[in-house]
Amino acid sequence: MANYTVLVTGGAGYVGSHVVVELLNQGYTPVIIDNFSNSIKGSGSKPEVLLRIERITGKQVTFYEGDIRDKPTLQNVFKKHSFTHVIHTAGMKAVGESIIMPIEYYNCNVGGTICLLEVMKEFSCYNIIFSSSATVYGPPDFLPIDETHHVGRGITNPYGKTKYFIEEILRDLTTADKNWNVVLLRYFNPVGSHKSGLIGENPQGIPQNLMPFVSQVAVGRRESVKVFGTDYDTPDGTGVRDYIHVLDLASGHVAAVNKASEGCGLKLYNLGSGKGYSVLDMIKAMEKASGKQIAYNLAGRREGDIASMYANATLAETELHWKAERGLDEMCEDLWRWQSSNPNGY
Amino acid sequence: MANYTVLVTGGAGYVGSHVVVELLNQGYTPVIIDNFSNSIKGSGSKPEVLLRIERITGKQVTFYEGDIRDKPTLQNVFKKHSFTHVIHTAGMKAVGESIIMPIEYYNCNVGGTICLLEVMKEFSCYNIIFSSSATVYGPPDFLPIDETHHVGRGITNPYGKTKYFIEEILRDLTTADKNWNVVLLRYFNPVGSHKSGLIGENPQGIPQNLMPFVSQVAVGRRESVKVFGTDYDTPDGTGVRDYIHVLDLASGHVAAVNKASEGCGLKLYNLGSGKGYSVLDMIKAMEKASGKQIAYNLAGRREGDIASMYANATLAETELHWKAERGLDEMCEDLWRWQSSNPNGY
Repeated sequence: MANYTVLVTGGAGYVGSHVVVELLNQGYTPVIIDNFSNSIKGSGSKPEVLLRIERITGKQVTFYEGDIRDKPTLQNVFKKHSFTHVIHTAGMKAVGESIIMPIEYYNCNVGGTICLLEVMKEFSCYNIIFSSSATVYGPPDFLPIDETHHVGRGITNPYGKTKYFIEEILRDLTTADKNWNVVLLRYFNPVGSHKSGLIGENPQGIPQNLMPFVSQVAVGRRESVKVFGTDYDTPDGTGVRDYIHVLDLASGHVAAVNKASEGCGLKLYNLGSGKGYSVLDMIKAMEKASGKQIAYNLAGRREGDIASMYANATLAETELHWKAERGLDEMCEDLWRWQSSNPNGY
Repeated sequence: MANYTVLVTGGAGYVGSHVVVELLNQGYTPVIIDNFSNSIKGSGSKPEVLLRIERITGKQVTFYEGDIRDKPTLQNVFKKHSFTHVIHTAGMKAVGESIIMPIEYYNCNVGGTICLLEVMKEFSCYNIIFSSSATVYGPPDFLPIDETHHVGRGITNPYGKTKYFIEEILRDLTTADKNWNVVLLRYFNPVGSHKSGLIGENPQGIPQNLMPFVSQVAVGRRESVKVFGTDYDTPDGTGVRDYIHVLDLASGHVAAVNKASEGCGLKLYNLGSGKGYSVLDMIKAMEKASGKQIAYNLAGRREGDIASMYANATLAETELHWKAERGLDEMCEDLWRWQSSNPNGY
């Protein structure tokens, strides 16, 4: 088996930590760099998420605390390891926050990526897997949306634009220099957590995404969920999205690492389940998984939201030999295991 | 009259130096920062372009050699002056080069702008005039093109994408924080030079734009001009563009400074003449102005080029009270004066 050494930027984060576990399970060697801007370190001398990853896998993980915009730090990490790949999950990710503080988002996400690419080039590491988002599509012209859909139009927030801009930068890179292999993974909505309940999504402050909010209501940390928009053209009037189990997402990254190793040039894939569930579907599923009643209030539409969005994920199935295996109930059960055993996160 | 102190990034460059002269002529106080990446300093202790600006205007200019990505340097400049406005002309600008070295373009143009905006915010300077480009429109759906035309689609090179990305960043900034006043100036094709012939376009290496190339042929530095594409749907089959005298462009910047001072929020204007001239028109006009025969070879189309592009510039006329005053002959005569009296640039 290939012995890949993979730098995971943002490896202490929600998606990153699950990717690291999956890499370890597959016998690869992940190395984490994280600045803990989205996650909480915990109180011990070693970040709690790392201790948990080591408990799950029985393996040690090399970890650097640092910001990818800090070039000397990044160069130092590249000096110590011969990375075959980078999985680039680091970035700020709250849509609403990005509207309020755009410079910070552009600096962190776009600036961070540019710095990372410069250092990768300096150390001749040309394989990168990027955490993109279905947001790059803007409002969909057709559903299920596939990778032929145009991108970059009608994106209503800086977060989404940073994802689009980074995709374009990576695209231009593969045009300029055939050494580069780039896999853009367009995430739909990751939910759930590792089966152990030891790692999971650990939002700071008020969760910006639906399911962390719902699970915090289930566990009693918050009173009720606000459902934004009840008059959309969907079966129950609430917004429909494509939710994907974070374990499926993680295995998609490992498949992308293997794809890049083939010398793939530029590739881009939807990582979604292909199924759409409404906000009310999700609340009900979480009630079932948790055995708790989840209070919710109906509210008006939120600006910039769309009615429905879900993936055609067949390209990833054909080319990455990957598909989402875990259904809605499993997502909610696993999320609940994490939430109920860690009601306040790490 | 208002006593504005204006930081001009890239103030030693072609457009920047003409903007500085115009600011001085209007009684404003420009301060230059430039890293001399596109321009040549000359041999003296003071950059030649500054000596020339001072000769033209009879006034001293404050100048800093530095890169806008170097935050401490930029902060230091902001500490020494209370800027009311920034005119941001700094940036890499060669389309072909940008395809070969995209990371450098994204780093310099996008990264540089982000750093500049951070420092502006830190020092509460919220008025910025940005050197954008007609390139942001991509291939035009209609002509003459006006500011209602969509942007960002079909841009075929990283240079153009950096202009588009920066426009979006500045747009998001004005949405987030009403303190900001942003004027995006979408340049068409600047040509010509100051009447004195003392300052002008001074490209390093092979000129990437038509008219510097044509004038170098006229002055005997190069053998002949290559005309890319002779079968476009234009009167003579060669590409049609909108050329604007750099002195008109410069006065447009001063008008934009005044606009920003009114508290304009986000504004964007085409700066063009509104007229389209073909490549052969331009060569003929330069022959007339220089009295030299200009050899040219007809060649195939260049990938990414379009048939015609010219501005509807009435919005700038209405809102900035500005329009291009100088015609084709004057552009070529002024260019020739600069080129013939400085055959090898500064």
